Amino acid sequence: MGLGLIGGSLARRLVNAGCTVMAWNHHPRPYAAATAEGIECVGTLEDLAACRPDVLVLCNPLKAMPSLLTTLAPVLDRGTTTLTDVGSVKAQVRAEVRAAGLDDCYVGAHPMAGTEFSGFEASDPAIFDDALWALTVDEHTSLSRLQQVAGMICDTLGNRAIVIDDQTHDRAAAMISHMPHAVSTALVNMLTTSDDRNVAAALAAGSWRDMTRVAMTDPDRTRAMIEENPANVVVLLRDFSAAVSGFADDLESGNQQALERFFATGQPYRLYKARQSDVAQGRGGQRRTLGISEANWRDELIESARRGEWILRFATSRQAEVAVSDWK
Amino acid sequence: MGLGLIGGSLARRLVNAGCTVMAWNHHPRPYAAATAEGIECVGTLEDLAACRPDVLVLCNPLKAMPSLLTTLAPVLDRGTTTLTDVGSVKAQVRAEVRAAGLDDCYVGAHPMAGTEFSGFEASDPAIFDDALWALTVDEHTSLSRLQQVAGMICDTLGNRAIVIDDQTHDRAAAMISHMPHAVSTALVNMLTTSDDRNVAAALAAGSWRDMTRVAMTDPDRTRAMIEENPANVVVLLRDFSAAVSGFADDLESGNQQALERFFATGQPYRLYKARQSDVAQGRGGQRRTLGISEANWRDELIESARRGEWILRFATSRQAEVAVSDWK
Repeated sequence: MGLGLIGGSLARRLVNAGCTVMAWNHHPRPYAAATAEGIECVGTLEDLAACRPDVLVLCNPLKAMPSLLTTLAPVLDRGTTTLTDVGSVKAQVRAEVRAAGLDDCYVGAHPMAGTEFSGFEASDPAIFDDALWALTVDEHTSLSRLQQVAGMICDTLGNRAIVIDDQTHDRAAAMISHMPHAVSTALVNMLTTSDDRNVAAALAAGSWRDMTRVAMTDPDRTRAMIEENPANVVVLLRDFSAAVSGFADDLESGNQQALERFFATGQPYRLYKARQSDVAQGRGGQRRTLGISEANWRDELIESARRGEWILRFATSRQAEVAVSDWK
Repeated sequence: MGLGLIGGSLARRLVNAGCTVMAWNHHPRPYAAATAEGIECVGTLEDLAACRPDVLVLCNPLKAMPSLLTTLAPVLDRGTTTLTDVGSVKAQVRAEVRAAGLDDCYVGAHPMAGTEFSGFEASDPAIFDDALWALTVDEHTSLSRLQQVAGMICDTLGNRAIVIDDQTHDRAAAMISHMPHAVSTALVNMLTTSDDRNVAAALAAGSWRDMTRVAMTDPDRTRAMIEENPANVVVLLRDFSAAVSGFADDLESGNQQALERFFATGQPYRLYKARQSDVAQGRGGQRRTLGISEANWRDELIESARRGEWILRFATSRQAEVAVSDWK
């Protein structure tokens, strides 16, 4: 459902992997191009549900979710079809899915993939190369449906996954994406309103370009993203503001011990990234088999994610192969 | 003077342009490689001064500046040689040059060029491709010496320049480089100390990578850079901290007008960058001739830089060709 950048890229990658892919979009403009890529386009959302797909992936904008779920609820064969999505926040989507009475067949999903462009014309199966998906579960999630979606991700798309709860996902997404987008926008605002702006803009080089790249994209899209996850972003921005002003105090007073600490704190992350780069070049990197139990699989998978393990595939319904990204 | 990343790259680019380049380095390790590139290496700083170069470019680390200037002062033929540098802060260097009694032959300079690597082995004449240099002047600077250095930059290196005072340079450099480095480090620190760090690191994609790239380099080098310009960085970090926490308040209270303003403020910069990209691709872009006067050339050149004009070359001692980077 939805043939934008993510939906279109996903549909094309699934077609390339040999899947039968049917799609509906809220307007038929991408249908000619999608059909040429081997995607079967249908006229209505009801038609799509009537295809009784194994997995129905909601790739619509988040703001359209409630009305689409309302349309879908009476026509979805929830015995046959597992419902999932690609939304960048997860607690809100699950609440909307629950409100539509569809949470028994739902598995939350968020692929870490994208570009600054949008629309089917910008779609590209390669944006999923080496992607990691967050899958989210709660106490109503079925293990077999989780493993069905994980099968699509790991076996069909060749991607990796982690399994977590919605709240951890939304906090982590705020940390690595939503909050930094606000920070980048605030940097651009400072330059724009500075009396030195022409001189500063002339001197701006690589560091400034990197730090402000995400603020160069459509600010309405950035705003919508941040406003979908406000509570987590607010907490992080306040912590961040305090850290920055604390550093300013230490710099002003020349507090050598505090400055030392400020520049040393991130060292474990620098080493972690250096090791990951080694792994990507074929040096090091560990795998192991994670056993999960009928009674406690949710906590076992969530704890695995919190230890820094990435699911490569489910070998059986009780065993996952995981890569260990050790952060010591 | 100094055959590190910047000094080595500059020397090689000058050799390629047909200049005679002599160099001294505080240790002779790069001499074999430098000689192979056509650079004539000398044994002592006194030997270098005795060559009576037209321009002597100080490419040493800032912390070595006072002692090198003390050595240089008694042996430099200041009637023949113009002294300049490549330091990333300018007020401090000028004070040290003045303390050594050399300010009558000095022009401040800071090329916006570099990489995350260091040493002659990382040098590359191409790091100066399309570079812009900040040249700094005060009331003691001679116009003919400024134009001599500008001639090297514009005519020999094929680069652009702006002329400003030291204080504006140091504020602008804090804005687009030193302060963002601290912000990026603070982001990495937050992730490193977060309970969600493994999950967040797994989800991290392009926006996080861009925002933290400058914090992945040697933190000691970042610290040294920030500690060379502390007063300007402190002011900007406090303004930045207040802007971030103000945005958090507006996001929490849902202040639509303030949120609208936050995301609209940087729009002039986005449009400016889009126009610059057009200019780089050969569309648009204006040039004009800037006349300067004997009596008031400093203010005229500084005002030109503040209007967003970049010097392409001095056509005569009273006329500069400038590119107009309009920021409306």
